[in-house]
Amino acid sequence: MIDFYTAGTPNGYKPAIMLEEIGLPYSIHKIDIGKGEQFSPEYVEINPNSKIPAIIDRETGISIFESGAVLIYLAEKTGKLLPTEPAERARVMGWLMFQMASVGPMFGQFGHFRNAAPEKLPYAIERYQKEATRLLKVLEHQLAKTTYMAGDYSIADIATYPWVFGATGPYLEVSLDDCPNVQRWMEVMQARPAVKTGMSLFSPEFDSKLGAIA
Amino acid sequence: MIDFYTAGTPNGYKPAIMLEEIGLPYSIHKIDIGKGEQFSPEYVEINPNSKIPAIIDRETGISIFESGAVLIYLAEKTGKLLPTEPAERARVMGWLMFQMASVGPMFGQFGHFRNAAPEKLPYAIERYQKEATRLLKVLEHQLAKTTYMAGDYSIADIATYPWVFGATGPYLEVSLDDCPNVQRWMEVMQARPAVKTGMSLFSPEFDSKLGAIA
Ligand SMILES: N[C@@H](CCC(=O)N[C@@H](CS)C(=O)NCC(=O)O)C(=O)O
Ligand SMILES: N[C@@H](CCC(=O)N[C@@H](CS)C(=O)NCC(=O)O)C(=O)O
Repeated sequence: MIDFYTAGTPNGYKPAIMLEEIGLPYSIHKIDIGKGEQFSPEYVEINPNSKIPAIIDRETGISIFESGAVLIYLAEKTGKLLPTEPAERARVMGWLMFQMASVGPMFGQFGHFRNAAPEKLPYAIERYQKEATRLLKVLEHQLAKTTYMAGDYSIADIATYPWVFGATGPYLEVSLDDCPNVQRWMEVMQARPAVKTGMSLFSPEFDSKLGAIA
Repeated sequence: MIDFYTAGTPNGYKPAIMLEEIGLPYSIHKIDIGKGEQFSPEYVEINPNSKIPAIIDRETGISIFESGAVLIYLAEKTGKLLPTEPAERARVMGWLMFQMASVGPMFGQFGHFRNAAPEKLPYAIERYQKEATRLLKVLEHQLAKTTYMAGDYSIADIATYPWVFGATGPYLEVSLDDCPNVQRWMEVMQARPAVKTGMSLFSPEFDSKLGAIA
């Protein structure tokens, strides 16, 4: 059993998709980040950086923080979605890091200055809008060559999809008009049952997986 | 032989330290990011995201982009600085991702608004200054419990050290006065010969390792 601590945000969806793909049993614990539950002493024991998501593998007692580390742990535990062959593995790790270090943080800064900051700062909004567009172009260029980001379907796609999905909605209103291959990839992703279920985290169909906070 | 594409920046130092620690032979190729060499078609073949660092392992022909992926590749190739035991490994991956997703991008944004942005935007400067301080506190809290970030010395320390080193200099002028354990860790890191050599990338002692662009 995996205890899964999360919220309905892009980083929170990643392990949900992964857990659905690999078929391990899990129990969801909702962390209300609006109420600051990520700062509770019990939760900081699980994630020293006070962020969602995190997991505890009750089979081994291991707790893992940072969504990228959670994906790698679950992939290595099950032998799925992260190749062991060095060339393929390096490609997956590169694209996973691209999401962790660029797509996530930069889309996040764009969202902050666009939607949350108390002052509208045109310079900052434009900076992150440009960077989001540049990152999508990098993705477009890659997806013109490969079906999935790193060749075969992998944890790199799982990490990136929720962010691109979120970016095209009211959160960032980014257009994919110039990114036909990203659009195609989005459709391929959406057609996966695990992606559909993972992205509907906290909808009624998840009720059976909701557990009490450990 | 490892071909190592880099520049004298925190992300650029990480593989230098790693290569010194593991003792693999390497040849350095300086990418002048001020001149935009990271955007040349040949370099984009190596790093689709047009950033330093990247490596090509000439023994296997594998090319790797994103510093975190480079560190993982070199650790797995040599069996060094990334444990295989699942609990220890998850800890290293968590702290490596903490650097990749937070320390790097957020210190970088702080540097941008503090030093490079054409307008001084107090809101943005303060936002990233606060976040940098918060991240150092997270590190301080961890290093009060462990000698190195994830227990034993690992790629997580190698990834983080150049950023904290840079932050305490004129780039960010962050104070470590309230972080005695980070200070202690910095000293332990600085005492490692591989850290000393890696951080002196592009000083005269590196001349013998300079190669022509592949
Ligand atoms: N690099 C982290 C980022 C996690 C993150 O930023 N989580 C957000 C929600 S998407 C959060 O917990 N925010 C609450 C807070 O910052 O206090 C990861 O990938 O796990
Ligand atoms: N997440 C990337 C970040 C790399 C990065 O930001 N590199 C900077 C130098 S520290 C760079 O190449 N900047 C040039 C540019 O952005 O055009 C990594 O860790 O490798």
